[in-house]
Amino acid sequence: MKKNYLKLCAIQEKIYNLNHAKSILNWDQATIMSVHGNHARSQSIAEISGLIHQLISKKNIKKLILASQVEDLNELERANLREIKNEWLLTYNLPKKLITANHLSKLKCEFEWRKQREQNDWKGFLINFRKVVNHTREEAKILSNTLNISPYDALIQRYDQGLKSNEIDKLFLQLKKWLPKLTSQICKKQKKNKPVQIKKNLDIKKQKKLCLEIIKLLGFNLNRGRLDESIHPFCGGVKEDVRITTRFHKSTFLHSLYASIHETGHARYEQNLPSAMYNQPVSRARSMSIHESQSLFFEKQIGCNPNFIKRISPIIKRYFDFDPGLDLDQVDFFSLINTVQPSYIRVDADEVTYPIHIIVRYEIEKNLINGDIEPEDMPSLWNEKMIKYLGINTNRNYKDGILQDIHWPGGQFGYFPCYTVGAIYAAQWFHFASKDIDNIDQIIFSGNLEIIFEWLNKNIWSNGSKFETPELTKKACKGETLNVKYFKKHLENRYLI
Amino acid sequence: MKKNYLKLCAIQEKIYNLNHAKSILNWDQATIMSVHGNHARSQSIAEISGLIHQLISKKNIKKLILASQVEDLNELERANLREIKNEWLLTYNLPKKLITANHLSKLKCEFEWRKQREQNDWKGFLINFRKVVNHTREEAKILSNTLNISPYDALIQRYDQGLKSNEIDKLFLQLKKWLPKLTSQICKKQKKNKPVQIKKNLDIKKQKKLCLEIIKLLGFNLNRGRLDESIHPFCGGVKEDVRITTRFHKSTFLHSLYASIHETGHARYEQNLPSAMYNQPVSRARSMSIHESQSLFFEKQIGCNPNFIKRISPIIKRYFDFDPGLDLDQVDFFSLINTVQPSYIRVDADEVTYPIHIIVRYEIEKNLINGDIEPEDMPSLWNEKMIKYLGINTNRNYKDGILQDIHWPGGQFGYFPCYTVGAIYAAQWFHFASKDIDNIDQIIFSGNLEIIFEWLNKNIWSNGSKFETPELTKKACKGETLNVKYFKKHLENRYLI
Repeated sequence: MKKNYLKLCAIQEKIYNLNHAKSILNWDQATIMSVHGNHARSQSIAEISGLIHQLISKKNIKKLILASQVEDLNELERANLREIKNEWLLTYNLPKKLITANHLSKLKCEFEWRKQREQNDWKGFLINFRKVVNHTREEAKILSNTLNISPYDALIQRYDQGLKSNEIDKLFLQLKKWLPKLTSQICKKQKKNKPVQIKKNLDIKKQKKLCLEIIKLLGFNLNRGRLDESIHPFCGGVKEDVRITTRFHKSTFLHSLYASIHETGHARYEQNLPSAMYNQPVSRARSMSIHESQSLFFEKQIGCNPNFIKRISPIIKRYFDFDPGLDLDQVDFFSLINTVQPSYIRVDADEVTYPIHIIVRYEIEKNLINGDIEPEDMPSLWNEKMIKYLGINTNRNYKDGILQDIHWPGGQFGYFPCYTVGAIYAAQWFHFASKDIDNIDQIIFSGNLEIIFEWLNKNIWSNGSKFETPELTKKACKGETLNVKYFKKHLENRYLI
Repeated sequence: MKKNYLKLCAIQEKIYNLNHAKSILNWDQATIMSVHGNHARSQSIAEISGLIHQLISKKNIKKLILASQVEDLNELERANLREIKNEWLLTYNLPKKLITANHLSKLKCEFEWRKQREQNDWKGFLINFRKVVNHTREEAKILSNTLNISPYDALIQRYDQGLKSNEIDKLFLQLKKWLPKLTSQICKKQKKNKPVQIKKNLDIKKQKKLCLEIIKLLGFNLNRGRLDESIHPFCGGVKEDVRITTRFHKSTFLHSLYASIHETGHARYEQNLPSAMYNQPVSRARSMSIHESQSLFFEKQIGCNPNFIKRISPIIKRYFDFDPGLDLDQVDFFSLINTVQPSYIRVDADEVTYPIHIIVRYEIEKNLINGDIEPEDMPSLWNEKMIKYLGINTNRNYKDGILQDIHWPGGQFGYFPCYTVGAIYAAQWFHFASKDIDNIDQIIFSGNLEIIFEWLNKNIWSNGSKFETPELTKKACKGETLNVKYFKKHLENRYLI
């Protein structure tokens, strides 16, 4: 008998169905919605979010969880129960009033931030941002008590169940040791042979066709998904119908192509999640870090791999009439794609300097949420760290500094580390995949990548949330847990040899 | 004090927000969803429909309605309360089990109908259809008791609040008197000068551009809506963001253009519903008959008007390279667009024979729901009536006969009469608009239609559901109620003079 467990599953099914609606409404809002539809859309999404919250935190859930724990469940059902419980712990004791207040303050802060960023208006931003920080600290404190971890760690759990800041500290400490030096070594090496820049009017329709051809090569299933355009590329929709987006610039195909490749990594994870218990939490993706490890595996480990670039260069050349005087055989696509250069903007950063951008944000937001600093301390800390780690001065340049990301105005504290933890995982997956697969470089050059996808499917995708992250990692990596050395090796191999 | 009334409004706001989600999910499903998304989508829509039903039929609603009726409400609030009550009466005492059972039987019947229609398989269809009829009869009986009207009349209330079959009988009796004769008169007249047929490969992109130009001319607001493609044209989305669709055939621009014009009529009604109390039932469209009167006003009264055709002919010619040998000035666009010809398929029928298709369906479904005939009696009745009214034999041709429409497999009994009641209203609106507007023919030829739209806005759109239909009609038509004579006059003017 597992009566109580089945009751929990029935509630999860409802949540699944409502999340479906929410995801499609969000996708539509970001891609094709008419401008005047925004208010009504936001109301509708808020209504559905409220219903989902109600279902997760229903009064009888605690009883059902306790009763389920002594029921006769198999391994997968136990894992599902664990996931249900974890989600419940992150929700049940947050007062509805606080959630609504925080939701509204984030909405306002994010809305005004769009203008304030353009106007470099940190002072104006601070007025709304203080409220977001205070509400989020309140939430973090409540969750901290429930979970018996620090407030900041409690927020990380929303994006990566089990990840703690002491683990992140260790990873990032190592990165800080060798990354600045590695960066300057690479920059020095790259200065010697600068690639020919291709700047031309590149037809958007052709760019889209190129993207479609490459994402198909990468196994994206267009019968279960779409590619569209949006201001910020993302992977949305639902796992039965995954909707990725990219953005197009006339002057280069690199943005649209590599955003498409990145989102294809997210998409293939979603498209290949387990079909058993498909509407239960155990069949969801493991965490945002693991999700990022998939997008970065596709973008960096495969997409920027010299062998892959060799494979797709003829395809790229087929699409465009580049500058007439240009000998395409002379274009060094590899250098063009893999240029390393310290810069202000995280989303435009290369993979070598990217972790620095994350470390700056991580160290600041951790101290902010734990109450060691206040919002007004943030710009000087930002500037200090950017100078120290990256040699870039952002003094009074809030626009290209502390105001550049949507995460903080949107209250998404705890998300940033997932990007770099994901990059480290991606390098580690590639290392162990190379051990299991003979001649992986030749395979990448051939473009018949099925055997690599099979590895990912077996070790990551098809597991959903069955295992907790350390166990997932050990199973994929012959008993090893996350180790930053594979990321270091990857960067050295790619940029120094 | 109007505490109870405000509680009802708060529930309606939730319903509004959920209906928003449902509409967008439906639109997405019919236009751009990937094939594999269908199952999850249907589950999500069913979940939301269930929540809406729960909200409409909550146990405390009766109390709240009764208490609101003695509260201090203004005229608009009273009208809103009336609409809330009417919707509640159509829902509250239907057992949830019956609704679910009927939902499932309709889903199955509709799903299998798609194949059965192609295969002309009436026997196979009958197996599922009997269940749909039985469940729907059960629902109709319960509503019949609640509303104290016949079971069929009870179902009509779902689409047109207040419309009864005795009124429809009277209207249709008159149509049957003069429509067959009028049809043969028109056909005889049209035989004399058959228009030159334009058959060519007409670029779909150009057709879409033409549609966009014409719907803009007709006032469609593209900042609050979109035009897309779907198998069956429809008007969907939400009133803040109205999404119409059309379908394209390479061989003719007429289908895509006139479907766009038709849906623009629906769209302008939605786009111009009152903004006061926008999320309450009083601000919804009055009924499906009135909705059809708007689409048909745009399609038939304006779109097929010889003066409008004169206005848009040069625009049409601008878009396409027609047959090289063709002298476009000789093309009689009016005759091309307004050809009358008895035929099998309702959706392809001209406006003269269309009401006959509706009368056949109306007479059959009324007897079916009231229990005077059984599903197995329907094909012979269908054939008998089609021969009698239209001279068309559909014996054993179920595909182009009784199996042609989605309404019956989908359980939408009571909807069909709205099409022709709407056509009669459209002619009457045009008659009275012509009285209020000088030189309406010249205005239509000029293409500056604003004054006509203002008439529609004042008399129909901006009223939402404030007035019940007879009052709405009297206000627009100088005290007159619906009268079929205006429709007769319209057909005679257009086709015989």
